[in-house]
Amino acid sequence: MVNVSKRLLSVPASPIRKLVPFAQAAKKQGVRVYHLNIGDPDIETPDVMLNVLRNWNKKTITYARSHGEPALLEALKSYYQNLGYPFIDTSHLVVTLGGSEAISMAFLATTEVGDEILTFEPFYTNYSSYAAANGTKIVPVRTASSDGFHLPSLKEIEKKLSKKTKAILYCNPNNPTGTVYAKKEVEMLVTLAKKYNLFLIADEVYREYVFDGRKQTSILSYFKKIPQQAILVDSLSKRYSLCGARVGVLSSLNREIMAGALRIAQGRLSAGLIDQTMASQLAKVPKSYFQKVHQEFQKRRDVLYQGLLSIPGVSVPKPEGAFYCIVGLPLKDSEDFCKFLLTDFNLNGETIMIAPASGFYASRGLGKNEVRIAYVLNTQNLKKLIQILRQALIAYQQKN
Amino acid sequence: MVNVSKRLLSVPASPIRKLVPFAQAAKKQGVRVYHLNIGDPDIETPDVMLNVLRNWNKKTITYARSHGEPALLEALKSYYQNLGYPFIDTSHLVVTLGGSEAISMAFLATTEVGDEILTFEPFYTNYSSYAAANGTKIVPVRTASSDGFHLPSLKEIEKKLSKKTKAILYCNPNNPTGTVYAKKEVEMLVTLAKKYNLFLIADEVYREYVFDGRKQTSILSYFKKIPQQAILVDSLSKRYSLCGARVGVLSSLNREIMAGALRIAQGRLSAGLIDQTMASQLAKVPKSYFQKVHQEFQKRRDVLYQGLLSIPGVSVPKPEGAFYCIVGLPLKDSEDFCKFLLTDFNLNGETIMIAPASGFYASRGLGKNEVRIAYVLNTQNLKKLIQILRQALIAYQQKN
Repeated sequence: MVNVSKRLLSVPASPIRKLVPFAQAAKKQGVRVYHLNIGDPDIETPDVMLNVLRNWNKKTITYARSHGEPALLEALKSYYQNLGYPFIDTSHLVVTLGGSEAISMAFLATTEVGDEILTFEPFYTNYSSYAAANGTKIVPVRTASSDGFHLPSLKEIEKKLSKKTKAILYCNPNNPTGTVYAKKEVEMLVTLAKKYNLFLIADEVYREYVFDGRKQTSILSYFKKIPQQAILVDSLSKRYSLCGARVGVLSSLNREIMAGALRIAQGRLSAGLIDQTMASQLAKVPKSYFQKVHQEFQKRRDVLYQGLLSIPGVSVPKPEGAFYCIVGLPLKDSEDFCKFLLTDFNLNGETIMIAPASGFYASRGLGKNEVRIAYVLNTQNLKKLIQILRQALIAYQQKN
Repeated sequence: MVNVSKRLLSVPASPIRKLVPFAQAAKKQGVRVYHLNIGDPDIETPDVMLNVLRNWNKKTITYARSHGEPALLEALKSYYQNLGYPFIDTSHLVVTLGGSEAISMAFLATTEVGDEILTFEPFYTNYSSYAAANGTKIVPVRTASSDGFHLPSLKEIEKKLSKKTKAILYCNPNNPTGTVYAKKEVEMLVTLAKKYNLFLIADEVYREYVFDGRKQTSILSYFKKIPQQAILVDSLSKRYSLCGARVGVLSSLNREIMAGALRIAQGRLSAGLIDQTMASQLAKVPKSYFQKVHQEFQKRRDVLYQGLLSIPGVSVPKPEGAFYCIVGLPLKDSEDFCKFLLTDFNLNGETIMIAPASGFYASRGLGKNEVRIAYVLNTQNLKKLIQILRQALIAYQQKN
């Protein structure tokens, strides 16, 4: 007998995956399923990017540069410089195959097998996959709905540090909670990184999605304060509705990290030529595009938040950014309820697919009364979501 | 002080990379540099694939399916079935981000950190990168130019096995040697895999590039004999001139491997939507496309081989497949010579960039009198290559 590796077996299944067959079965029976379970927005990709495809005239799809296509690297440099970080040069950037590869590179760069990375739960579920594949241990620090999932005190975080802790990872604005960390929270993490000699990895793929006039505090503001420790993970997926174009960024002022990331990038040859050529148009995307997208998501947030509050027993902190929220429900097993929505319920032939929140927690038993909702559909559909959720909760309670 | 991980530092630099600044400097001085250092062919991508771009009408670049786009999976299934393997179903395939990701997944799936994979040197240099990133040790088994880089005897291979050996990896047709393994060689590897309970990983991205009427013996022929052990790594890059579209395949009948690969694929969300949509047209590529490409490469092989033999002191086994060869030169330091070609030599304002072969060996000291040539340019340019190489060797010998 041959045995596959333990590390392969340790890569977790997507917690949403289990529900997919039920969604498919529902669709087969003619039920319309609204997908609010994944952050794949319905926003159109900017025309200036789609035109790259329509006007494609290169006859051979050759490898792109391992570091990133020069035009894209220049466009990214300008983007970061215009954000207020004129010190960012192309040598501080490596183009990755989505934010996913950037996170995986950051794990590999900062930990040996068995080392620990602290992050705040609930957290983006795929962190667990990259951690398993890299042999890194994720140590969760709990945040609570009652605090809007904001960070706990420095002392609480310190309790979770061990000799094996090599980095703190945070997502800001946060997937799955919608929390935008205040400047003082980010500064607390910088303080911790300095005090304990840790890497600080910031996942900022939702940077522009902040509501109610908030400002996102980027780790880029601290790049010069902790140049060897700060690492930015970024992606163009959400900013330009390019989820299926696998273009992300790893950035740091730490030369060893950037040199190592470039060596990994050379090993896998390149990110996609076409995706990068599209993305390199980013400077030409009009400001009106972002204003429209931003307004749309703030409107969706408002409709969703008001609607959720109107349902008895439902609790949710007001989402501050990104396009997710963790919603508390008046029940004990949200996974069972999410399945119920697909197998036993519909409202006029329609239902919703949402994600049980337990998959976003590393600590067992947490999140069992919570779901994550990605508000990636328009307000009309979100209003339907509210009706469906309200009726489904009643039906579920009657059934149980 | 924070320290980056040792495993990041262990990821090797591309051995060709060092020469890039010299090539850039040569170009700045007006010298034309012919690139024969990387397997990025000049062949046009099939029109039916490029038309996918020109006719693109989807408004949003959404995530593709983690497993692979259904249309692509179906097209791949048909491709393998038409090759003579009707038992291949989409459940035996996962679409990867290039062959690169498929190899990396195979390493992760078959080894724990510190475990060994046997392969035959000289070997594709990026295997070392994936090995370093995965903490896998590559144990090289030497092959020799005098045998056309064919496999050594079973006994010679057995000598290199240890308790930590988990897999044998081979590339057929071979990059960098151009060797196509005979059926009995592949069968010897299958025998070894059976005898010692090893995984057998075949990298067959050059499957169609075999010359002089040879037939490539695919590991797919042995999938049913060693269903738990056989793993195929494949890519569309070379077959359809899609290097910059990152589309590869991992295939096995081993369910745990395929389930694990799918979990990894879910973690990194998806391969590119556009690249996969292009690739899904593969069944519509006319046979004439392949015939033309095949003829072209066989012609190039002939021109190159005859030309190389005409240069005093140069030795090369006749390449049997792929589009590479390892060429023995009458000198002691091919890296120095490759640099010399870029910094100190030109013939009528033209020179060549070729790869020192030492980067394709894991054993120190091997390959120092060899270079790898990728014959990815047309015959006219290959004739120039021969002239340049002939004159450069004279000039180099006079200088040293």
